[in-house]
Amino acid sequence: MKVAVDAMGGDNAPQVVVEGVKRARDEFSDLEFILFGDQEQIKQYLDNDERITIMHTTTQILGTDEPMKAIRQKKDSSMVLAAQAVKDGQADAMTSLGNSGALLAAGIFIIGRLKNISRPALMPTMPIIAGDHGFVLLDAGANAEVKVDYLKQWAIMASFYASEVEEITNPRVALLNNGSEFDKGDRLHQEAYQQLSQLEGINFVGNVEADNVLQGSADVIVTDGFTGNAVLKSIEGTAKLVVSELKNALLNNGLKAKLGAALAKPALINIKDTFDVSKYGGAVLMGVKAPVVKSHGSSDARTVYYALVQLRMMYNKRMLDKVIQYFDQEHK
Amino acid sequence: MKVAVDAMGGDNAPQVVVEGVKRARDEFSDLEFILFGDQEQIKQYLDNDERITIMHTTTQILGTDEPMKAIRQKKDSSMVLAAQAVKDGQADAMTSLGNSGALLAAGIFIIGRLKNISRPALMPTMPIIAGDHGFVLLDAGANAEVKVDYLKQWAIMASFYASEVEEITNPRVALLNNGSEFDKGDRLHQEAYQQLSQLEGINFVGNVEADNVLQGSADVIVTDGFTGNAVLKSIEGTAKLVVSELKNALLNNGLKAKLGAALAKPALINIKDTFDVSKYGGAVLMGVKAPVVKSHGSSDARTVYYALVQLRMMYNKRMLDKVIQYFDQEHK
Repeated sequence: MKVAVDAMGGDNAPQVVVEGVKRARDEFSDLEFILFGDQEQIKQYLDNDERITIMHTTTQILGTDEPMKAIRQKKDSSMVLAAQAVKDGQADAMTSLGNSGALLAAGIFIIGRLKNISRPALMPTMPIIAGDHGFVLLDAGANAEVKVDYLKQWAIMASFYASEVEEITNPRVALLNNGSEFDKGDRLHQEAYQQLSQLEGINFVGNVEADNVLQGSADVIVTDGFTGNAVLKSIEGTAKLVVSELKNALLNNGLKAKLGAALAKPALINIKDTFDVSKYGGAVLMGVKAPVVKSHGSSDARTVYYALVQLRMMYNKRMLDKVIQYFDQEHK
Repeated sequence: MKVAVDAMGGDNAPQVVVEGVKRARDEFSDLEFILFGDQEQIKQYLDNDERITIMHTTTQILGTDEPMKAIRQKKDSSMVLAAQAVKDGQADAMTSLGNSGALLAAGIFIIGRLKNISRPALMPTMPIIAGDHGFVLLDAGANAEVKVDYLKQWAIMASFYASEVEEITNPRVALLNNGSEFDKGDRLHQEAYQQLSQLEGINFVGNVEADNVLQGSADVIVTDGFTGNAVLKSIEGTAKLVVSELKNALLNNGLKAKLGAALAKPALINIKDTFDVSKYGGAVLMGVKAPVVKSHGSSDARTVYYALVQLRMMYNKRMLDKVIQYFDQEHK
């Protein structure tokens, strides 16, 4: 399996990208890599080039670039060339830490949409309290407007992901809504509830409310990209804030609090780990023709490594083939 | 000022309700109360009936009741009778800890919508880090579907609330969106951005993302009731979960962690206070003809007291008169 890696995306590129790639290469002998980026900079962090090819690039898409314009005008950027390598069959999968909107556009317009899928969606994995795997949420921001058909397609794709990649038996699929009863939400959500509950091949468990998503009541949660984005950001923002307030409270409240913090440190690290999503890799761009994973711009090498593990699982389990097969069957 | 109090709503009624009323009565000599509920139960918690009238009721709307059906069929319930007292001019304001949907329906169909307001909205106050007042969010769940006009009306009403009741000078109004740039979100949000920025009488500061709302970047945040509800619940759910995980981590990780927790306790209580929204009272039903506040079903007496303080401020500052005046002017 060959992975096209945009080595220049993110806040700490290419260092964390190269380090994550090295770790994955050393662990998995079936993986090869094409790194797109500045050759000199990449080599700085590379001990040897076993199963690693560098494609030198001098342009990169910035976080501030307008996505569509960027992929049209920066055709020789590390991100666009990585996507192009997947399209041309030189690579089987792709990962980037760069501009989300541009990666979304590159996924849709360069790699291409899967047959029978109306709209690709961004699908991050979120933590579940007291669970060894998280839950996936989609769409987390690719589509502000949504139709019932999109939600159905996302439910099916994510269900395949949960069963194949996360190895969850009969994954529970839920609809994010503002109440648990079947008649909650606007007409779209009421209609979506009806259609999801009649959909064969998924285990629909009904509506879930946003204050319950972290409790582990579902393995897959579908929603429109506007609400999904807001929920994702609310959870991230709140968790981050509570943890930083906690740090503040423990360190700036005199010696007693400081001593208490020192004694409790291992316990506090435990809880930080629970909310650390880097072990889940990144957000899958679900609905394009190859496995594509987007990680946070602030990711470290560990997250890059996990994103590669994630791509390898999607590829080895032939997850997309199963999705294609399902929808071909459906449209017969 | 006379407040109609639904004494039977919430998990700990009527005890917490009566206790909250007593505290407000003892503090504010300008307040009178009509308590709707079971006379025997209410009297149990009442030391004396100074400025308190009890209207005995035997029916109550349950949390599980279907809202519209409940207010139509349970005409002699504590909630409906309290709303009726406001409509009939026997009381100037109302508060309840009961069924949100039913209170919303009672507000709209019994007390009545304000002239020129299309749709009343639920407006809770949320905490801001390192701020002495919170921010208000609306709509937090009354209207799953929204129009640009609703958002504009909510922005204006909430802006009056922030300046009059919270005494914030020139309150900053923001639109919840999935990006900070003016062209983010779907067409409705793009249009709302344009119209809000041209609206006279409010200080529109642009879009705000959900991971930033707790940072205090705005005093008023407007959004549709579906997203608002999801964001509110995500924040509440996450904060609650982090705090409970923290407790777990400190108490179930051996003696050292426990000792650390004991030493750090005052500091930890500090942070709990930051996220404690009970000091803000409850969610205002914004857009009906009288001040109406809904508090959580799990509220304690302190929250009930603060809800009464909130109603008193709205009444004394003639906040609704200013809203009415603004829209009358607007529609001339």
